[in-house]
Amino acid sequence: MKAARLHNYGEPLQLDEVDLLKPKGASVVIRVGAAGICHSDIHFMHGEWQKAIPVKLPVTIGHETAGYVEEVGESVRGLVKGDVVAVFGGWGCGVCQFCKGGDEQLCNSPRWPGLSQSDGGYAEYMYVPSYRFLVKASGLDPKYIAPLTDAGLTPYRAVKKVRHMLNPNSFTLVFGVGGLGSYAIQYLKLFSPTNVIAVVRDEPKAKLAKEMGSDYIINSKNEDVVSSVNKITGNQGVNVVFDIVASKDTLDVGIACLKKSGALVLVGLMGSSFNIPVVESVINEYSVIGSLWGNYNELTEVISLARANKLKTVVNPFKLDEVEKAIENLESGKIQGRAILIP
Amino acid sequence: MKAARLHNYGEPLQLDEVDLLKPKGASVVIRVGAAGICHSDIHFMHGEWQKAIPVKLPVTIGHETAGYVEEVGESVRGLVKGDVVAVFGGWGCGVCQFCKGGDEQLCNSPRWPGLSQSDGGYAEYMYVPSYRFLVKASGLDPKYIAPLTDAGLTPYRAVKKVRHMLNPNSFTLVFGVGGLGSYAIQYLKLFSPTNVIAVVRDEPKAKLAKEMGSDYIINSKNEDVVSSVNKITGNQGVNVVFDIVASKDTLDVGIACLKKSGALVLVGLMGSSFNIPVVESVINEYSVIGSLWGNYNELTEVISLARANKLKTVVNPFKLDEVEKAIENLESGKIQGRAILIP
Amino acid sequence: MKAARLHNYGEPLQLDEVDLLKPKGASVVIRVGAAGICHSDIHFMHGEWQKAIPVKLPVTIGHETAGYVEEVGESVRGLVKGDVVAVFGGWGCGVCQFCKGGDEQLCNSPRWPGLSQSDGGYAEYMYVPSYRFLVKASGLDPKYIAPLTDAGLTPYRAVKKVRHMLNPNSFTLVFGVGGLGSYAIQYLKLFSPTNVIAVVRDEPKAKLAKEMGSDYIINSKNEDVVSSVNKITGNQGVNVVFDIVASKDTLDVGIACLKKSGALVLVGLMGSSFNIPVVESVINEYSVIGSLWGNYNELTEVISLARANKLKTVVNPFKLDEVEKAIENLESGKIQGRAILIP
Amino acid sequence: MKAARLHNYGEPLQLDEVDLLKPKGASVVIRVGAAGICHSDIHFMHGEWQKAIPVKLPVTIGHETAGYVEEVGESVRGLVKGDVVAVFGGWGCGVCQFCKGGDEQLCNSPRWPGLSQSDGGYAEYMYVPSYRFLVKASGLDPKYIAPLTDAGLTPYRAVKKVRHMLNPNSFTLVFGVGGLGSYAIQYLKLFSPTNVIAVVRDEPKAKLAKEMGSDYIINSKNEDVVSSVNKITGNQGVNVVFDIVASKDTLDVGIACLKKSGALVLVGLMGSSFNIPVVESVINEYSVIGSLWGNYNELTEVISLARANKLKTVVNPFKLDEVEKAIENLESGKIQGRAILIP
Repeated sequence: MKAARLHNYGEPLQLDEVDLLKPKGASVVIRVGAAGICHSDIHFMHGEWQKAIPVKLPVTIGHETAGYVEEVGESVRGLVKGDVVAVFGGWGCGVCQFCKGGDEQLCNSPRWPGLSQSDGGYAEYMYVPSYRFLVKASGLDPKYIAPLTDAGLTPYRAVKKVRHMLNPNSFTLVFGVGGLGSYAIQYLKLFSPTNVIAVVRDEPKAKLAKEMGSDYIINSKNEDVVSSVNKITGNQGVNVVFDIVASKDTLDVGIACLKKSGALVLVGLMGSSFNIPVVESVINEYSVIGSLWGNYNELTEVISLARANKLKTVVNPFKLDEVEKAIENLESGKIQGRAILIP
Repeated sequence: MKAARLHNYGEPLQLDEVDLLKPKGASVVIRVGAAGICHSDIHFMHGEWQKAIPVKLPVTIGHETAGYVEEVGESVRGLVKGDVVAVFGGWGCGVCQFCKGGDEQLCNSPRWPGLSQSDGGYAEYMYVPSYRFLVKASGLDPKYIAPLTDAGLTPYRAVKKVRHMLNPNSFTLVFGVGGLGSYAIQYLKLFSPTNVIAVVRDEPKAKLAKEMGSDYIINSKNEDVVSSVNKITGNQGVNVVFDIVASKDTLDVGIACLKKSGALVLVGLMGSSFNIPVVESVINEYSVIGSLWGNYNELTEVISLARANKLKTVVNPFKLDEVEKAIENLESGKIQGRAILIP
Repeated sequence: MKAARLHNYGEPLQLDEVDLLKPKGASVVIRVGAAGICHSDIHFMHGEWQKAIPVKLPVTIGHETAGYVEEVGESVRGLVKGDVVAVFGGWGCGVCQFCKGGDEQLCNSPRWPGLSQSDGGYAEYMYVPSYRFLVKASGLDPKYIAPLTDAGLTPYRAVKKVRHMLNPNSFTLVFGVGGLGSYAIQYLKLFSPTNVIAVVRDEPKAKLAKEMGSDYIINSKNEDVVSSVNKITGNQGVNVVFDIVASKDTLDVGIACLKKSGALVLVGLMGSSFNIPVVESVINEYSVIGSLWGNYNELTEVISLARANKLKTVVNPFKLDEVEKAIENLESGKIQGRAILIP
Repeated sequence: MKAARLHNYGEPLQLDEVDLLKPKGASVVIRVGAAGICHSDIHFMHGEWQKAIPVKLPVTIGHETAGYVEEVGESVRGLVKGDVVAVFGGWGCGVCQFCKGGDEQLCNSPRWPGLSQSDGGYAEYMYVPSYRFLVKASGLDPKYIAPLTDAGLTPYRAVKKVRHMLNPNSFTLVFGVGGLGSYAIQYLKLFSPTNVIAVVRDEPKAKLAKEMGSDYIINSKNEDVVSSVNKITGNQGVNVVFDIVASKDTLDVGIACLKKSGALVLVGLMGSSFNIPVVESVINEYSVIGSLWGNYNELTEVISLARANKLKTVVNPFKLDEVEKAIENLESGKIQGRAILIP
């Protein structure tokens, strides 16, 4: 079978012919229906994480995968050939306190496919070590499911962490309306009557934010974000900031927009660090909350939103052998919605 | 001024001419714009609560009031003549643990207007002992605000108590689609993507439930509720039951419809008691949660939903001197939405 | 190896010589160090649950087991021969929403050892299908660990469910100071400064309750519980009731002792059902909360309390071939603390 | 009566003879039993906050006061002359969302006595605008109660914010064992079985930390905090950091000590700002939580701990006319426990 593999950090992927593993025990081989391309893949391929996560190359990239069950190991239950499935990517050890607590993506010894030693989904087939990492998505098209396993899942967990703060007279600020942010806006509206303010940097994103349900749009190219937020909220500030970008700029502005007892939720990974003002944070009881990917049950919930036709997902499909072109387009900001590979 | 007062339990109200009190200190006199008529008023007037809440008659009925500020005491802040206000009815002492915790409606020594020694809103004017019991509703029509202070507020608190359980693949059962239930359905949809199943007993209520956003309707006149719930949920049962009726019948059925780890929220006051099965409740980790009225901040949130045009309120207006006719219509089930008095 | 097996409901256990299974894959064989004897075992052996949980006999009894790793399957990680381990008994499927959420004891298709088709711990050796059901207890004596896997675990989860309610000026009522209740009292004191009132029926239990840290003791043989609670609490009532007995009597009294916004936690399984008063539950915002056993992480926490010498565990040891005598003593109320089998 | 008043920022207080106000309405005059001296008083007197909180001088300092009811206004309920009371200092407007939610210390338009235009407790008598700001402390000595209203209250709220994280196998790091930190340690032990590690800078503080119940002590003069934490926790890190100092140093070290999913609670006000690493915070789901003073119910709970003899309070008493000496001692680090004025 064909697989797009990384042989050396910083070099293009190679489309290799590799052997297909045979599943045994609890493992499953799936035929890839679609594999999402994520900014994390690019960080990984550039070698930015090689110290933190040492990997023996070559390895197949891709942690956002959906497809069809091809073959199952002898102890797999509840799945048969042809079933549509999403691959939950936060593969955990199953026994540490985080796995046992239901947050496998926080596992103490994780094996994330396509981002560690385990091969990912930029391939015709993918080997998944346990059927416990698959979520059924019967009747759905893998094309629209693959992006849900990360781009759709990450903001879902983040929104649920502060769901109790999203009340009728509240305001919520979303920085970044790309792959993740467009879901964030949708979840905010599905889970609350909060008033959403999206911060964008161009007109197409402004249009997208509007379509996803944002009540207000601030274009940070033309407008000062803090002043605009003050105008919209009557100088109250916002209850919650979702920072999908998390660069130094957005974070400083985000804190400055917070209302008393407000929360800033960190989702993005762009910046290296940012400053928190101590006295203001105490006096106003601010909180800053990191949120990582999502867990298995959360993915199940996201997929059930898709099944109920409550989620809009925009995809930009490429063939597997166009992988390098897809990556270039993503890097140069030409992708609308999520770039996906269809083997 | 005119006030509809109860002189003897079980007798009709009398339209008396009474003196208007002059506000001093923190107190406020409001000109009543609308006063909702509630089943609780009827219980009170029939004398059902005279042992629990001893009152020296006559007293003016009415705990669901909205109107206009007429005159303010010298220490009132932030209000001027003409301001539209809703009267928060759970008047607390301000110093017990419940008042200090923000739940004045649970106060250890409450004075609920129209249901205790304090005069209520079935009158041309109403004396409110503190401006801290008034919520601003600028720009809104008291007619649509009065019902929010109880019928609209009570299910709001109840829904927020279990908001964290209302997830995409969940089901929620609502018993009773009258004054309170129609709001319950709306809040469930505003605060979550849960699938709502309403249980009604006639076609007009079925139609109303549909309009309010219910996904499924069960008419308990023709259908067995448990079987219908099993069919709708694929034998899973429901995550949450809101029992607005809370009669012995609905409660037993409600418990029987629960899914593992489900909750039954008690809002209604019809029944005297019901049976909880011990082994099932432990094995399935059921919970039963009582919910009383709502607090001041919750009322503020409800009113801000109304301001944002996110709430449908159906009213059935009567003049103040038609109060007895209005009560008769309510008792005989002829009211659609909420009966209100317009002085 | 020897195993105490049930061949027919209602008949004594037989001490059979059975083959020892060889572990493969993720499974582990442990040499039993101690096996607790629980009232649930007796219910099971009497056939009370044969309709709810159909089992093909014979089966080895025992769901409260600790011991030493004897042999491990080829994919087991982190365990070697001789390691002291506790067996977590709530064996789940690993993939349903409850397992994935960290509450395997609530699994939709559970296999509880000794209480279903899977053999339990009344034996020299026990086969455990996955090392993910074992908790390390290095350096501890299995004798004091076995009771923690159920008697010690169940009240732990129950106490943590209402931990946020256990504040300095609160009162907590515990019904039943036997195997579970003595832990409940200890956890209440370890996790809060609440004032504990234990209800007992004889002097030895009163003494035990005192030793475990109870602040007040009510002997329900001589005293009216409600009056005594009123005296102790200055007529306020209690914030939380833990009903470890959960008979009709204790439950009715429990509800009658609750303070406004109080909670009754159901842990015991004695009664069949009880009455909840509707109006009182709404007006006072009572809640009733079922709690089942505990999950893996909770067991880990309980064991770390034992390791830190913060838990008192009283055991009453019997040899494996004395199993029938041990059961008789438990049934006739002669056991102090927890009866355990030492093979 | 005598009052220690600030006439000009940066100058010594003057002991003035001022008129005693007569209480009316809901207000109360108390005879001061003791007034705590806090670092915040010094910040205020130095004029550090004069831009943030403009005040027309002179004003009487002191926001930590307990004493005896001297005279009550005509609408005061539940208090008579001679009652021992603590003054809750977070005087709120009573009607904003924070006051109505029970967190008056977060009020949108606060009047903190001794730190704003309202006179505080460095005086023989103090005027309190509402009996709703007094907590009964019958039978207790004002000397030990005054420090509880801020030094004792602030860490109480902070500990309760993360109470659910303080489990048996957890570690909690406390920076600063002075006025507030010694209470923090006590609350941690009263509310949980967490393992407390105190960071101190000298031997007397090490001794104090031990007495208060700290399980481990790190002296940051001799030891590297991160290495010592790693040694104590077996390289796991700590679940919670309470930073009572909150200087740039302690905060950076605090973040570096956190375990995955850990929280840093900000209580102190020393530093101006600190850096949060973005990627680590997301990957590890860290949170940073600001906590301000405490609310009325929390003060009630703290006082009930004192009544139950569960709190150790060390005071260093001075006469009212020794106020400048007391302040000098505090500034030069010579105070053990809390400095208090006894008029």
